Amino acid sequence: MSRGLSDLHIGQRFESRTVTLDKAQALDFARQYDPQPFHLDDEAASQSLFKGLATSGWYTASMCFRLFHDSLSDLRGGIIGRQVESIQWPRPVRPGDTMRVVTTVAQLERSEKNPRFGTVVFDHEAFNQHGETVFRMRSHVLAQDPIT
Amino acid sequence: MSRGLSDLHIGQRFESRTVTLDKAQALDFARQYDPQPFHLDDEAASQSLFKGLATSGWYTASMCFRLFHDSLSDLRGGIIGRQVESIQWPRPVRPGDTMRVVTTVAQLERSEKNPRFGTVVFDHEAFNQHGETVFRMRSHVLAQDPIT
Repeated sequence: MSRGLSDLHIGQRFESRTVTLDKAQALDFARQYDPQPFHLDDEAASQSLFKGLATSGWYTASMCFRLFHDSLSDLRGGIIGRQVESIQWPRPVRPGDTMRVVTTVAQLERSEKNPRFGTVVFDHEAFNQHGETVFRMRSHVLAQDPIT
Repeated sequence: MSRGLSDLHIGQRFESRTVTLDKAQALDFARQYDPQPFHLDDEAASQSLFKGLATSGWYTASMCFRLFHDSLSDLRGGIIGRQVESIQWPRPVRPGDTMRVVTTVAQLERSEKNPRFGTVVFDHEAFNQHGETVFRMRSHVLAQDPIT
């Protein structure tokens, strides 16, 4: 069974599992996509604004997406992002931090032209092991009901 | 020499190099961060909305960031994202596509409290080898002038 547009409602929450961020994975990501010293080198990072090695914001975003995905893996047709409305990174994320993501349905819009389809607006918030918010995102995802 | 807040002006453009997206890299990314059939399996992807294997939107975003980074690698203090205002993925990106990113300075705001620092608002647009827009983003990045 998969979950469709009609199975979602405003205020509905999805709580992810936790993940402890692997330093080798975070460094590998930074080497490929965000090769800046504060994401790659402890010594350089300690002298940066981050005051210590921080993960790339794109690594954090990608891992938060993975956690969200795993908390809603039965969405009909998969999770297809139409757009992102905002991303914030209020605090640095460190390799070794343990993260989890809480996602809330903020809005639901059914297509007038094709009412089997619609857009779900999700608010995602990620917390570290101290309960501090490290990532916030509002995303617009395609949702669909089954063909009846 | 690095580039500071005073070296930037509205309308200034940064054109990236091109990159041809490696299928093994795109699949590796999807396995770790976005393990959905249309990002991993040709056969499943051909039956999805994407009508063929598509890269994860987070892979596209991360690679576009890399291209932008390399086109502005001399920003003082590095490229530190404060927030993202919007992301859109108007067309699927395919492994093997050749992408480039054009970035324009949209706004500049100097901090009133600490005028050596400010925020640069960038509009990023990524094109595939056909000149079609595949990714758009507006980002807010920290910028700083040297200590005088």
